[in-house]
Amino acid sequence: MSTITAIETTDIRFPTSTMLDGSDAMNPDPDYSAAYLRIITDAADGLEGHGFVFTIGRGNDVQVAGIRALEGHLLGRDVEELLGSMGATWRELVYDSQLRWLGPEKGVMHMAIGAVVNALWDLKAKRAGLPLWQLLGRMSPEELVELVDFRYLTDAITPAEALDIFRAAVPGRAEREQALLDSGYPAYTTSPGWLGYDDEKLARLCREAVDDGFAQIKLKVGGDIDDDIRRLRIARETVGPDIRIATDANQRWDVQQAIDWMRRLQPFDIAWIEEPTSPDDVLGHAAIARGVAPIPVATGEHMANRVMFKQFLQADALGILQIDATRVAGVNENIVILLLAAKFGVPVCPHAGGVGLCELVQHLSYVDFVAVSGSREGRMIEFVDHLHEHFLAPVDVYDGRYWPPLLPGSGGEMRASSRSEFEFESAERV
Amino acid sequence: MSTITAIETTDIRFPTSTMLDGSDAMNPDPDYSAAYLRIITDAADGLEGHGFVFTIGRGNDVQVAGIRALEGHLLGRDVEELLGSMGATWRELVYDSQLRWLGPEKGVMHMAIGAVVNALWDLKAKRAGLPLWQLLGRMSPEELVELVDFRYLTDAITPAEALDIFRAAVPGRAEREQALLDSGYPAYTTSPGWLGYDDEKLARLCREAVDDGFAQIKLKVGGDIDDDIRRLRIARETVGPDIRIATDANQRWDVQQAIDWMRRLQPFDIAWIEEPTSPDDVLGHAAIARGVAPIPVATGEHMANRVMFKQFLQADALGILQIDATRVAGVNENIVILLLAAKFGVPVCPHAGGVGLCELVQHLSYVDFVAVSGSREGRMIEFVDHLHEHFLAPVDVYDGRYWPPLLPGSGGEMRASSRSEFEFESAERV
Repeated sequence: MSTITAIETTDIRFPTSTMLDGSDAMNPDPDYSAAYLRIITDAADGLEGHGFVFTIGRGNDVQVAGIRALEGHLLGRDVEELLGSMGATWRELVYDSQLRWLGPEKGVMHMAIGAVVNALWDLKAKRAGLPLWQLLGRMSPEELVELVDFRYLTDAITPAEALDIFRAAVPGRAEREQALLDSGYPAYTTSPGWLGYDDEKLARLCREAVDDGFAQIKLKVGGDIDDDIRRLRIARETVGPDIRIATDANQRWDVQQAIDWMRRLQPFDIAWIEEPTSPDDVLGHAAIARGVAPIPVATGEHMANRVMFKQFLQADALGILQIDATRVAGVNENIVILLLAAKFGVPVCPHAGGVGLCELVQHLSYVDFVAVSGSREGRMIEFVDHLHEHFLAPVDVYDGRYWPPLLPGSGGEMRASSRSEFEFESAERV
Repeated sequence: MSTITAIETTDIRFPTSTMLDGSDAMNPDPDYSAAYLRIITDAADGLEGHGFVFTIGRGNDVQVAGIRALEGHLLGRDVEELLGSMGATWRELVYDSQLRWLGPEKGVMHMAIGAVVNALWDLKAKRAGLPLWQLLGRMSPEELVELVDFRYLTDAITPAEALDIFRAAVPGRAEREQALLDSGYPAYTTSPGWLGYDDEKLARLCREAVDDGFAQIKLKVGGDIDDDIRRLRIARETVGPDIRIATDANQRWDVQQAIDWMRRLQPFDIAWIEEPTSPDDVLGHAAIARGVAPIPVATGEHMANRVMFKQFLQADALGILQIDATRVAGVNENIVILLLAAKFGVPVCPHAGGVGLCELVQHLSYVDFVAVSGSREGRMIEFVDHLHEHFLAPVDVYDGRYWPPLLPGSGGEMRASSRSEFEFESAERV
């Protein structure tokens, strides 16, 4: 038996706003940040569990406070018990009734639970000597179902249906694992498309994206319609007709505005429109999806929890489902979101970028391919070439594809030197 | 000109869990708490703005951290500018893009904005020498529309429609103000119905509720169906056929479970079923509303923001709309929720109880009557007889009715002695 002896939290902020990387219609000046968590045990193996919540600057200290509020569920606890029953551990955290009041199941406290859950998965995978995607992809259908809490979901998916989905994907698991190692997983790049870049930089980055083998790029839109038309024309002329161009409005519009705006961009052959309006608006997205067809609606990175994903699927409000590694309550909740997507036949194309989101979320796409949907068809992982050097296992992306890591763990461990170099001093806080 | 010179935050917790007051199917042991905020200026009047977020214990420190993250929007700012344009002030706080990432517009950060907005309204009302309900109820339709941000709402209500609603309520404003002073506003009581009480206490409290003039009581349900049937039988036998009995499941059920459970309780003539499932589940509530008709569905106390309320109304997912004073981003957001309810013809019956929620939310019902819906018909404010003594102007409830306060301010100022007596020491924190 071993015990959790310490929880270390760190407020880490990178001064990205000075470069206008990451600028979009709603987020003009993000400072990519991580509310970071390290779980330390007294086990002889010396292994630690690392996890974090990605934020964009101010308020990262609030997110750290959210993680610290969960220490009571961790300190002094039996590691094997927590890791041996990750479904029960998830429920214990999410159904702490006093903390649940602060959401419920959304915002700072829910993301804090996600960081803790992901840190525990990191530790569990390191103990197993496997990268998270292989650990999960090799668990039995029964073990996978055990991870999921079906409360609020049974009108869309039952435990029996979930078991059927996992079981249907058992044949061919080993072949698909090998296929990932042999041919990777499709990626698309958002690097060319930030609103803060001038036209020349846009064109140059579009050319580089094609040269780097990406089959899809994404442009931020929603600031000004004439700018969007000009930028899309430049992009389309640069990449030619065969490269897919997706657009992302970052929640900028109301319902009718989204429909009108996208109809004007339709001539540029748009792969999808992402986050056209509030991530809470199921009915609004459903109306937009009908109004902008055949352009599919993509969303999910700001969706608070599994209940929101359920409804978007029930209402035909999205055509591309975008999970995020640190928005919901961690790996367990993302697994049930993968199940819902499989049940409704919608492809999952994760949100990534920020700090460490690429490193984390790739594991979930691999699990989707190996053990849930069984397909890479119409699926790809977002790629932004930012800040990877700060991680122990930076993503390996070339020829327009992600190549799966083999280092044991979740992928979320940041280098100790980076953590100390970019630790935000409380004296700097407002 | 005067300036905000200091922001004082306090973590206040009352040890209510020792009495089982407030116990329900999801919240067995709440410690009613307030993440409290005091805005101090250098004005010669010495007036302060007080506001808070109600929580149920653990995590109240996270909520305080959320409020502190907003200090940069307050310290050193011109008071007249902030108070003179409360719509712009609201937008500045809600659209701080870095902080918005932590929601967006939900959970800890959104509630923190609510505390700040409400504290500013408290100061504004004190400066006007009016209780908040009179300050708001006497503003012009144009001034009221200015308070509201219509982003994400125009598919349900436009600024022009809002103006029409406010203008239609101008005639008779003075008479309705007087009517409130003469005959109060209907209340209902939840005091008899907590799950932790035994049958004898339940019957005694039901009798007392009738003796106190309440026309409606509310019972917590959802723990065990046989217990619910027994407790409802006791309650119905005690109060007779003419007193309305509402039920509250506190988010306990899945969709089909809610329908099945409530069909078994229907014989007891149920006034409404409150929070049958996840507060995020628009489509689920719509299905439940169809399945349990003619029992209406009531919900709202945990609804994160105006976009959720909009959808519940669009989808016919509720028949009773329950605003909460400290869940959304303060007075401004609750005003647009009152507008949406008026537009869709749904009565507003606020959630209250906790710490200070009765004191705060009554003002919004009075504004609804005076300046929005113009009606008390089918409307009532929840009343729980807890912790009122800690406020400068405790609610005045008798003959089953709330009686409006005349003390200037929002009603949310807690006595200094209570604030210091129940301040939670960080040493006690886990």
